[in-house]
Amino acid sequence: MSGGFYDALVRPRSVALVGASATPGRTTARPLEFLEQRGWTGTVYPVNPTHERIGNRQVWPSVEQLPEVPDHVLVMTTTDPGIDVVAQCVARKVPVVTLMADGFVDSAEGGAGRRRRLLDLLEGSSTRLLGPSSLGVAAVGDDLMLTANAAFADPELRGGGVFVASQSGSAIGALATRGSEMGIGFAALVSTGNELDLSLGEICRAAVDDPQVWSFALFLENVAAAADLADFAAAAAARGKPILAYKLGRSEAGAGLALSHTGALAGDDAVADALLADLGIARVHTFEALLESQQLACAIGSTDSGRIPRVGVLSTTGGGGAMIVDCLAVRGAELPGPSPETIRRLAEIGVYTGPSALIDLTLAGTRYEVMKGALDIVLSAPEFDVVVAVPGSSARFRPDLTVKPIVEAAEAGKPLAAFVVPAAPDALRLLREHGVSAFRTPESCADAIIGLFGRRSITAAPPRTTTPVGAGVLLDEASSYDLLRQVGVPAADFAVVDIDDLPSRLPVAGPVAVKLLSDEVAHKSDIGGVVLGVSDAAGLRAAVESIGATAGKVLRVPPKQVLVQTMADGLGEALVGMRRDDQAGPIVLLAAGGVLAELYRDRSVRIAPVDLETARTMVSEVVAFRALAGYRGRPRGDLEALARAVCAVSKLADFPGPVVVEAEVNPLILLPEGHGVVAVDALVRLASESSAR
Amino acid sequence: MSGGFYDALVRPRSVALVGASATPGRTTARPLEFLEQRGWTGTVYPVNPTHERIGNRQVWPSVEQLPEVPDHVLVMTTTDPGIDVVAQCVARKVPVVTLMADGFVDSAEGGAGRRRRLLDLLEGSSTRLLGPSSLGVAAVGDDLMLTANAAFADPELRGGGVFVASQSGSAIGALATRGSEMGIGFAALVSTGNELDLSLGEICRAAVDDPQVWSFALFLENVAAAADLADFAAAAAARGKPILAYKLGRSEAGAGLALSHTGALAGDDAVADALLADLGIARVHTFEALLESQQLACAIGSTDSGRIPRVGVLSTTGGGGAMIVDCLAVRGAELPGPSPETIRRLAEIGVYTGPSALIDLTLAGTRYEVMKGALDIVLSAPEFDVVVAVPGSSARFRPDLTVKPIVEAAEAGKPLAAFVVPAAPDALRLLREHGVSAFRTPESCADAIIGLFGRRSITAAPPRTTTPVGAGVLLDEASSYDLLRQVGVPAADFAVVDIDDLPSRLPVAGPVAVKLLSDEVAHKSDIGGVVLGVSDAAGLRAAVESIGATAGKVLRVPPKQVLVQTMADGLGEALVGMRRDDQAGPIVLLAAGGVLAELYRDRSVRIAPVDLETARTMVSEVVAFRALAGYRGRPRGDLEALARAVCAVSKLADFPGPVVVEAEVNPLILLPEGHGVVAVDALVRLASESSAR
Repeated sequence: MSGGFYDALVRPRSVALVGASATPGRTTARPLEFLEQRGWTGTVYPVNPTHERIGNRQVWPSVEQLPEVPDHVLVMTTTDPGIDVVAQCVARKVPVVTLMADGFVDSAEGGAGRRRRLLDLLEGSSTRLLGPSSLGVAAVGDDLMLTANAAFADPELRGGGVFVASQSGSAIGALATRGSEMGIGFAALVSTGNELDLSLGEICRAAVDDPQVWSFALFLENVAAAADLADFAAAAAARGKPILAYKLGRSEAGAGLALSHTGALAGDDAVADALLADLGIARVHTFEALLESQQLACAIGSTDSGRIPRVGVLSTTGGGGAMIVDCLAVRGAELPGPSPETIRRLAEIGVYTGPSALIDLTLAGTRYEVMKGALDIVLSAPEFDVVVAVPGSSARFRPDLTVKPIVEAAEAGKPLAAFVVPAAPDALRLLREHGVSAFRTPESCADAIIGLFGRRSITAAPPRTTTPVGAGVLLDEASSYDLLRQVGVPAADFAVVDIDDLPSRLPVAGPVAVKLLSDEVAHKSDIGGVVLGVSDAAGLRAAVESIGATAGKVLRVPPKQVLVQTMADGLGEALVGMRRDDQAGPIVLLAAGGVLAELYRDRSVRIAPVDLETARTMVSEVVAFRALAGYRGRPRGDLEALARAVCAVSKLADFPGPVVVEAEVNPLILLPEGHGVVAVDALVRLASESSAR
Repeated sequence: MSGGFYDALVRPRSVALVGASATPGRTTARPLEFLEQRGWTGTVYPVNPTHERIGNRQVWPSVEQLPEVPDHVLVMTTTDPGIDVVAQCVARKVPVVTLMADGFVDSAEGGAGRRRRLLDLLEGSSTRLLGPSSLGVAAVGDDLMLTANAAFADPELRGGGVFVASQSGSAIGALATRGSEMGIGFAALVSTGNELDLSLGEICRAAVDDPQVWSFALFLENVAAAADLADFAAAAAARGKPILAYKLGRSEAGAGLALSHTGALAGDDAVADALLADLGIARVHTFEALLESQQLACAIGSTDSGRIPRVGVLSTTGGGGAMIVDCLAVRGAELPGPSPETIRRLAEIGVYTGPSALIDLTLAGTRYEVMKGALDIVLSAPEFDVVVAVPGSSARFRPDLTVKPIVEAAEAGKPLAAFVVPAAPDALRLLREHGVSAFRTPESCADAIIGLFGRRSITAAPPRTTTPVGAGVLLDEASSYDLLRQVGVPAADFAVVDIDDLPSRLPVAGPVAVKLLSDEVAHKSDIGGVVLGVSDAAGLRAAVESIGATAGKVLRVPPKQVLVQTMADGLGEALVGMRRDDQAGPIVLLAAGGVLAELYRDRSVRIAPVDLETARTMVSEVVAFRALAGYRGRPRGDLEALARAVCAVSKLADFPGPVVVEAEVNPLILLPEGHGVVAVDALVRLASESSAR
């Protein structure tokens, strides 16, 4: 995959505007208006068979008839004519084509057919396509406005280091105007549309090498093309360029018709969340934080992140300081307050404070020396990972007193943010222009800090295998245990028994569970295929009869064997599952067993495979397991063995035998600390082609 | 309680400024500067013994020497001299004194003593005090600026219908500048300080009768003086004037050293939340929503509220619309999408949409007629309680196309809000000035809608009895059951047995629990006072010996009796408790039993007593009980009996016998549907003076 398209995409020497209108105010007239308004210095070819001139510019009848091959063609015509224009561009070997037209998705009539035609055109060509359904590209610093979005009429819009890539077209307009109001400058804003060819990840991967780009703001609807996203994230991490993302779809109920609990419990957004986190991408949940936190993102090194931040808050207003402290605490930040040493140093400059979360400068007075001196001390205090300065009304009326020292302190190296309590647009802009993330609301400030420190550091992106593998073929319970044993997950003692040749005593220690052995059904108990608490041979016979009478009725093939398994009595239950997500690739899920865990959606999701350390973190993230970690004197469960099992199941993603489509242990019984875990049910699917072993 | 102070507080004819400085720029110089700048027409008396003139104004040496009794005196001197000024004001019968000084709280050295002195001065006098630690009052519409907060220098600050009362002083400054920037006008902003005399509730109660006041914005740190808050809320509801509140302290871990689980599980903020909800006060969790949602609050009648809103979203931008839909869905709103009839009507004007949550006008074009026509149809559609219009970039560049029709639609009567996607300050201001709540972020828009519809309607405020009752006296388990039976909560069969005279067979059906009977200990099992699963007389003897050997050691008086109780085997467990909160008065709490419910803090809190309908809602709010409501074919528990028990326990708040300080049933066993509930442990405390019955 080459980044050769990048210059043509954001830094072309010549562009063609196909479908450009001569009527001012029309959407299709805008790109030319914007380019002229900004004084873009490249060559522009308006293309429209029905015009000869737009203003005093020559208009060309078609791409075919252009006097040279332009670097980048923006196609504004409607859907089907748009495909023809792409064909002409391919024929002329145009490096990049941006296609605005809609109508290429499955939900549109004929959408699949059109998509096929486009893909066929691009196949083997040197032309790269942005879109379809892209609103275009604005390389603001270079004054290149290849977009019809009205927002780019804003003369205040200025160049800078933020690269925006958005799966929503209109979001680039909202981000452009908001960034402009905030005083934040952009390297470029790209609307990626349907990503039929160029994916968001591929575009951003190329932008990583652009020295104009310092950081990334992504507006996501999904995490399709996860492999490209992973490449991008790894390259950005290597260059120290932070990535922030705002993602829609948080409210989706789950993976719908997923066959396993793993699928239902994980849910699309949780999987996307796990992928973003694994890739070191900071996810924010407030729209404004996506831009407001860009400078702070640059100041927080990846070695600082992956943990709960310890935040110091310094305020010239009690109420404003209390607001940000409250928002941070609600979101789980640590607010340790100043150490005795810091308290002592602050007292030397007349700031008297206790060890409380808020260092309140109110009594010391709203003075430059107080804010300056206190910031110097707090920024050098080792007990804080990040400092939030909170100027009050002075930010609006006397920025020299409280805003200037914050600007000056930005040099200190320690991550610093400002929450500006009053409406003070000038102060906000001043801070941002000097590289300090300045937040208008306590909510976005807290959101950004939690999101940025929550990033994990990635060293190398694992290759994401997201090739569809189909539903696969189900293994029976005994074969599932065999596979799990190979990766190190033990099952409770079991024996497989022929129904026609029942033993005269229980083959394993009782009481036992007697279970239908079949590769036809995923959930045996739903069809009466499980009898629990059997303690002798007579019970075994009765159980087999009962299973034959109920489960036997619904199977294609009459049951021939049952699995007899010692019932394990532990301190708790867990569900551990691995599955392959269509977008993100293999994931591993850990949940507490039982109905309550399901109702509370109490689970932890990661991209698979995970190492033991990550598996331990996952165990700590599931609230229910705190009950087995010495809570209120209760007996401890073997949470370390649970972590090992999570690690083991996750490794099935890369198992060197048949491709494991899905594996789920449910329940895995947690024995007392030191006694391990045992599976008492399991379900594995293998990809069809390899299931014949 | 008289509202006679109100005119002197916000509409005085004359004011004195004690401690006014002649040095421009000093804090104590500001009130006079502000009054002059705004051209306030009343009489101003600067008071300062060290000045003769400020500018060309006469300065008076003391309140005693003023030529008339001013309506309102603002005291800006330091703490102890401040008390002397208050004494002079009391002597001259000044109607209202505002005291800015700090130093009257317990944490300040000598604070309690100063507070006592102030209270003694005010006792029996006609003078009412605002503060201490108040930043003052700004009655913006009347140009009265009795405050030293720098924010009130803002010449743009304008009059309007919003009355702000804040327990944080600096918050009035932040709200003033933000409201000014937003285009929102204020009737008044009052900083209530320590509320030693005038409480926030009492001040707002008086403001309810002010025709200039349309709605209230409260910035709260706590819900002290709950009785006044309740009076205010009832009066405001009667006049149809909505109340919104932003409250700090959400992150508090719990009630700390509470003796019961009820106290620990409820937590201060949950209690405040329950009080606000019961009083029909809409709580918002984003700072900006407090002001942004004022108009929407006025448009939503109290009969519309108390439920999950059905929201219609209409957008000229796909991404912007998706953002607000996502935020609403995450917060639990219903997004039913348009009905077939609405879809048909929209198609008639060229807007083609499916039944999806977002009505996207993008394809129909960003035109006045489209937005106007679609809004008319959607606002008259019965499937929506509230409509959110989402203009895109046009809001900034062509407000005539998409913002004007929203302004015009504000007349329709159906609650309407706007989320403005780009930065478009003029559009935001235009909308707000025409009575449409316009939101800058999708988060504040969704927060406001959920908060406003979540209000409960109150008809009459119950008198809040928040008199401290002390820790009270513990009843033993048998006496606790007796009291609970009187309100209708049954216990499992039990008998009280003398240790020295054990029966030769179990006195109730076995297996039984044998429990120490003592009014000394709240948690018997912590000291080995409980033996479970006893099935015969020999077991009973052994249990009594064991209890004597362990629990007997730690009691003052050797145990004389045990309680023998049939063990109940149900489908689940609940905790039901009533306790008296120092601020909010009696509350009732329902939680699921067991360690997981505790870890998940899965509970519902209300102000006690509650009726059966409210108790049923509480049952539905506890997630764990969904497992007993027919979830996935599981057996149903008797949730109706649980609701009756919640209702019964809550009535102990008003029990006509001894004052019940606290009552807790834990656990209450849930039997299968139709079989009721039974208590198997209980703890009751009565107020000391009445415990001798």
